[in-house]
Amino acid sequence: MSRLGLLVSMPEELLLKNCRYVVTMVKGVLSNKDVLVSDGRIEAIGERLSKSGTVVDCSNKIVVPGLVNSHTHAATVLLRGYYDAEHHKWLEKIWSVEAELEPKVVYLASKLAMYEMLSSGTTAFVDMYFYPEETARAAVEVGIRAVLGPVFLDRLVSPDEVIRSLDRLVREYGRSPLVTPIVNVHSIYACSQETLLTAKEYSEREGLGIHMHVSETRREVFECKRRHGVFPVEYLNKLGLLTDRTHLVNLGWITSWEIRLVKEGGASVAHCPASNMKLATAGFFPFKEMVRGGVTVGIGTDGPATNNSLDMFREMRTTVLLQRNNYWDAEVRAIDALRAATVNGGRIIGKKVGKVVEGYTADLVVLDALSLRLQPLRRDNVIPALVYSATGADVAMTIVDGRIVYRRDRVAKLRSEVEAISAELNAFMERVTG
Amino acid sequence: MSRLGLLVSMPEELLLKNCRYVVTMVKGVLSNKDVLVSDGRIEAIGERLSKSGTVVDCSNKIVVPGLVNSHTHAATVLLRGYYDAEHHKWLEKIWSVEAELEPKVVYLASKLAMYEMLSSGTTAFVDMYFYPEETARAAVEVGIRAVLGPVFLDRLVSPDEVIRSLDRLVREYGRSPLVTPIVNVHSIYACSQETLLTAKEYSEREGLGIHMHVSETRREVFECKRRHGVFPVEYLNKLGLLTDRTHLVNLGWITSWEIRLVKEGGASVAHCPASNMKLATAGFFPFKEMVRGGVTVGIGTDGPATNNSLDMFREMRTTVLLQRNNYWDAEVRAIDALRAATVNGGRIIGKKVGKVVEGYTADLVVLDALSLRLQPLRRDNVIPALVYSATGADVAMTIVDGRIVYRRDRVAKLRSEVEAISAELNAFMERVTG
Repeated sequence: MSRLGLLVSMPEELLLKNCRYVVTMVKGVLSNKDVLVSDGRIEAIGERLSKSGTVVDCSNKIVVPGLVNSHTHAATVLLRGYYDAEHHKWLEKIWSVEAELEPKVVYLASKLAMYEMLSSGTTAFVDMYFYPEETARAAVEVGIRAVLGPVFLDRLVSPDEVIRSLDRLVREYGRSPLVTPIVNVHSIYACSQETLLTAKEYSEREGLGIHMHVSETRREVFECKRRHGVFPVEYLNKLGLLTDRTHLVNLGWITSWEIRLVKEGGASVAHCPASNMKLATAGFFPFKEMVRGGVTVGIGTDGPATNNSLDMFREMRTTVLLQRNNYWDAEVRAIDALRAATVNGGRIIGKKVGKVVEGYTADLVVLDALSLRLQPLRRDNVIPALVYSATGADVAMTIVDGRIVYRRDRVAKLRSEVEAISAELNAFMERVTG
Repeated sequence: MSRLGLLVSMPEELLLKNCRYVVTMVKGVLSNKDVLVSDGRIEAIGERLSKSGTVVDCSNKIVVPGLVNSHTHAATVLLRGYYDAEHHKWLEKIWSVEAELEPKVVYLASKLAMYEMLSSGTTAFVDMYFYPEETARAAVEVGIRAVLGPVFLDRLVSPDEVIRSLDRLVREYGRSPLVTPIVNVHSIYACSQETLLTAKEYSEREGLGIHMHVSETRREVFECKRRHGVFPVEYLNKLGLLTDRTHLVNLGWITSWEIRLVKEGGASVAHCPASNMKLATAGFFPFKEMVRGGVTVGIGTDGPATNNSLDMFREMRTTVLLQRNNYWDAEVRAIDALRAATVNGGRIIGKKVGKVVEGYTADLVVLDALSLRLQPLRRDNVIPALVYSATGADVAMTIVDGRIVYRRDRVAKLRSEVEAISAELNAFMERVTG
């Protein structure tokens, strides 16, 4: 797999030796501990552990759970920086390029996005885009965890076609450790009631999650109320679409009684602060009410066309900043954002990841404790350092499923592959927009 | 000067050869150009330039003007991540540590902050903090441009003492190419009217700039109105403090008629979005009204205790995101933030920096055009890539006054110095808070 530019090694056993700090998300921040990974799982956390496998000196490192990007459109890295405007104008421009998409372009763009994610500490992501089989193939090659599937979107594709694509995906990846098929529903406004019910039935029959945009814009809420007589989340509730397999994204214009419905149904949500801000969708994702109400809240970057980044460290920071700005108080803290990106991310994707504890799957990120951005670093300021000061660039090593899939000190091959992929994507953009 | 950990070289002539992109801020983005620096100035921008001095291959690089941090308290890097709460509670905690400050701690913390700034593309900063002579000394050693001075703050120091300190600073740095003395006034609420007038007189007599916090919080505006019968900027206007030497910071609670006063007086302003958000001061810095009204708007990180970063790339991004969120439209663009951080920054500090044009002082940043975060990079998306996608970590080289003061590929010595300084600062924090 090293032909892909990233060093992918799969030691039987991996010992992160003498970690300066371990951010467990359960038992606080530990100092000077070893973390032993065996057969893809965290086997032990302790002192003076020793093993025959690969040993990594972590005396200048911070070990944290892998970050889960709870909502993105990875392959839109293709469209990064292409057009910079308000939501509806932006969508029109983007759609004109997307009408020309080819599977190979999605494959290459997905790979580029995955390299960016792994290099910035993201070990898993929930994706919604065209040609998901290309993104799935790239994920397995690169070694990242991906939750994805074809998208119900009436204007572009018939529900039958989506179902055939889902069938193929389930057949191929139903038992994959890295790729989890999911039922993607673009939104209420992009799907008929019949399509929504078809998606629901498929999800129930195959036991798959449903992932959809809801209440991102005022216009969308207005149209839903006008057409269906109820607010968007109420509408989903009426159709039986709010279950513990449902994952809702955006919710910048959700009412208090809809939050209750989300909680009662057991659905999870993803907050995408940077994208909402950049597209000027305004609104206010009620983070505190969601969390206090017992809803599982994750964080997503949204696509790199709207963010324009896949860096979950930046997104955690933006989460706290935006929430404080909106509420006019400082109650939302660094730890809340870190929990959303790790523990809650693990819940959202239904995997035993997001904590550094024995028995958990080894999706881990190793950061450089000597990074200038984090100084002066102490045990008592590690959490704010991670959320407010770190960027993805501080990641020294990323581990998914016990395998080292990124090392900052071995990127020479990666750089030349990145250059080649970018050239191909730019050639495509020139062809379809030029 | 290399004993300081950073490679500081001062070639007679420096040729940035075959730059993939040059962001001029005047003539758009150029491709494949050479930039020739001679005697600290940009001597020529063209093709196939050749010289006898140092040549840097920039075929995989982007050259941009050095970023100007228009407001910070650099040495508060000491307090980064120390306490994370709402503005007034936070201030109390911080003041209790600051009461114990020592010159050496300010010197070390300033140096750490400067390393972070240079490594993330900031070539100049406007500073307000205690023991400015320590920060000035560090700035000269490290090779960064600093605008600084002692702070009028009645509770802690008498105006006479501030003036004596200013006299010393002017004597020592009046003709320094790197350090510019300035009259720092903490705020209206921290100074009597007499102190404000003393500061004004000093500024007029010595021809120095005045730098002060204004209208950061609702409380401050309320108190000013109650005590003085007018809003804060109106009050400054009454005292004759709004001139083209005045630089005002924050202004989250400014009225429309106060904006007019700022413009008429010729004062410049600094927007500090991340700090305002993180401290939950709420309010709304009216970026569009300021710019349209003809006010020179810069961007500041504020101190690393409230941000918690000195990365101006992150701050440019946050500027656009916050403005779009506040206005509910996408009119503020990437180029507006970049202009604020470069061209306007140059105006604010009164130096011929902030553009890459012949005759300007060579304060330049060289970024890695192959960074994963920026792909796929083209000439037409360089500006959004810089503002939305780049972080300080993409900086490969920083040049101040024609000297190379940072190189990403030569940080081994820097890392050990950073570790040593952090240990000293942590020991101090333990002593005063433990």
